[in-house]
Amino acid sequence: MPVLTVVRVIMENTNEDCLAWAARDPSGILSPYKFSRRVLGCDDVSLTITHCGVCYADVAWTRNKMRDSIYPLVPGHEIVGIVKDVGSNVHRFKVGDHVGVGTYVNSCRECDYCNDGLEIHCSSGSTFTFNATDADGTITKGGYSSYIVVHDRYCYKIPNSYPLASAAPLLCAGITVYTPMMRHKMNQPGKSLGVIGLGGLGHMAVKFGKAFGLKVTVFSTSGSKKDEALNLLGADKFVISSDRQEMESAANSLDFIIDTASGDHPFDPYMALLKTSGVLVLVGFPSEVKFHPASLILGAKTVSGSVTGGTKDTQEMLDFCAAHKIYPEVEIIPIDYVNEALERLINRDVKYRFVIDIESSLK
Amino acid sequence: MPVLTVVRVIMENTNEDCLAWAARDPSGILSPYKFSRRVLGCDDVSLTITHCGVCYADVAWTRNKMRDSIYPLVPGHEIVGIVKDVGSNVHRFKVGDHVGVGTYVNSCRECDYCNDGLEIHCSSGSTFTFNATDADGTITKGGYSSYIVVHDRYCYKIPNSYPLASAAPLLCAGITVYTPMMRHKMNQPGKSLGVIGLGGLGHMAVKFGKAFGLKVTVFSTSGSKKDEALNLLGADKFVISSDRQEMESAANSLDFIIDTASGDHPFDPYMALLKTSGVLVLVGFPSEVKFHPASLILGAKTVSGSVTGGTKDTQEMLDFCAAHKIYPEVEIIPIDYVNEALERLINRDVKYRFVIDIESSLK
Repeated sequence: MPVLTVVRVIMENTNEDCLAWAARDPSGILSPYKFSRRVLGCDDVSLTITHCGVCYADVAWTRNKMRDSIYPLVPGHEIVGIVKDVGSNVHRFKVGDHVGVGTYVNSCRECDYCNDGLEIHCSSGSTFTFNATDADGTITKGGYSSYIVVHDRYCYKIPNSYPLASAAPLLCAGITVYTPMMRHKMNQPGKSLGVIGLGGLGHMAVKFGKAFGLKVTVFSTSGSKKDEALNLLGADKFVISSDRQEMESAANSLDFIIDTASGDHPFDPYMALLKTSGVLVLVGFPSEVKFHPASLILGAKTVSGSVTGGTKDTQEMLDFCAAHKIYPEVEIIPIDYVNEALERLINRDVKYRFVIDIESSLK
Repeated sequence: MPVLTVVRVIMENTNEDCLAWAARDPSGILSPYKFSRRVLGCDDVSLTITHCGVCYADVAWTRNKMRDSIYPLVPGHEIVGIVKDVGSNVHRFKVGDHVGVGTYVNSCRECDYCNDGLEIHCSSGSTFTFNATDADGTITKGGYSSYIVVHDRYCYKIPNSYPLASAAPLLCAGITVYTPMMRHKMNQPGKSLGVIGLGGLGHMAVKFGKAFGLKVTVFSTSGSKKDEALNLLGADKFVISSDRQEMESAANSLDFIIDTASGDHPFDPYMALLKTSGVLVLVGFPSEVKFHPASLILGAKTVSGSVTGGTKDTQEMLDFCAAHKIYPEVEIIPIDYVNEALERLINRDVKYRFVIDIESSLK
């Protein structure tokens, strides 16, 4: 038997001791499931999951919308928990620490991007937290589960003062808007920010915007969230995007726009709101991006994309949230509510992020 | 008679001493024309035009493609000449100096953009060199004419060592690619630049790219310009954009792309050529910009627009070209060839910029 095979056998954990909920087919309906996590390696952290946020990605992959789903599929990439064991090389974490895991759990750790703490852009591709092929050939399984074993590089410290349930949405929704806001210098006090869409991502963009000292305008398709946008989230202005007059009166008024809307929408009316040299960052996923070249050329405007963030930015963002007492608005649910929660997410009926109380409800 | 009216009468030049060629209607056919320029004001420079470049804008406005043409229309905004008179407040220029005038001849001179030398983005709108309403209510007339009177702020010094005929295309084609290349830091030696389209703008982007120490790849719809791209302009690589295999082999290889193509073309295949955080700058004018959000989001890529440049960048670019002996490739023509030249420009049959020898041919 070749040595590698021996090692492989030794590393396998044959106890199906990880409780989870998994989708079994493209219906996307989740039900209880048991499986094995890998044995703790010397660089690994094993954590008891206390909470997991519910991201739209969970809908997309449980329902095979990307046509690459591998079933049974355990979703969840906004994971927080408490360290229960660490490998011999791990010094950043100790048993009892509060830890988060985000959208990816591996990368090459050798390329320029990894070396810069931008592992999400790893030249060899980062390994997503669920439905991806890990280095050992197994399919990664996410945070709708009782525990997870992750290389320590992809674990984040959550300050003890920060509620674990609140930390979960930061690991995807939070970092997805924080990264481009920092990259595009949206943290300059006094500048003006537009936020399109007020879901999990959008409401965090408003919170970061206010923490950065920006004048924040929320654009929404309906007025139903106006009161909360202004009074709960602290936005300065609320515009219904179908109100042409209101939109036109905001022309050339914004330094930045962060577009979190995943539904199809026109881009030209929003680009007209940007000042000269203004930047629109797309983090949502409409079916296409289309605009007139004049919307881009006149005024030398920019449209830029972004996807989550690297480990360096993620830790920085968590520390920033703790220091500035920025907390996502969450609706905590038990695991057996998750199918209904995914339906409600599809119908945009959530204020503003579901977080599964894994610790209390997954038995 | 009110004082203002008296002044107006005094300022009017009733001699139709400016020779020109003008379009009279949307056929766009140009023919000889005479008109009056304004009397030299205290901040003005009057220059004898020696050469004027032929820009696609001349086609667009002589043929009323923007639906705002005012006839008779004298096009031309790549103007060079020799100072024949200066107003009493003008100290930057003296009689005999070589001077250029670009795409605009006025702006508010008070807003933040003007104060930053970005007059093209003037909050009140910059006044284009032809077919625009000037401060005195007259319609501006461009460089297909024997002389022009321009506020000295919008005149550029052309170093004596630099051939006037070569300088003309720098005033629009040159600055249109130079500005975004500088803004997006495309002047970092060793980086890789893609240039889409090899006309007046594209061939200047190649020349600037090589002067900046970049590895330059030219993308063209046909192979007809391959030899010149590599051997005359100095590009490192030439790719026929319809060759899917060649395009795919260039995936993730470019730091920047400057897109000078005005014809409609897909954007996704070009965005796939960009490295993570890569930037595509659009300076051409297709009928629409359309791409899949994944092309932007994955790899955190950027699409940005740009239009000519401010007075500060324009002077810097002229000085850079003189210092680095960068000369546009020009085909010098007499004014009575201009109708044929515009036809050839429409058919992309020019290497790489027509320049009208006004001095010798406009009598």
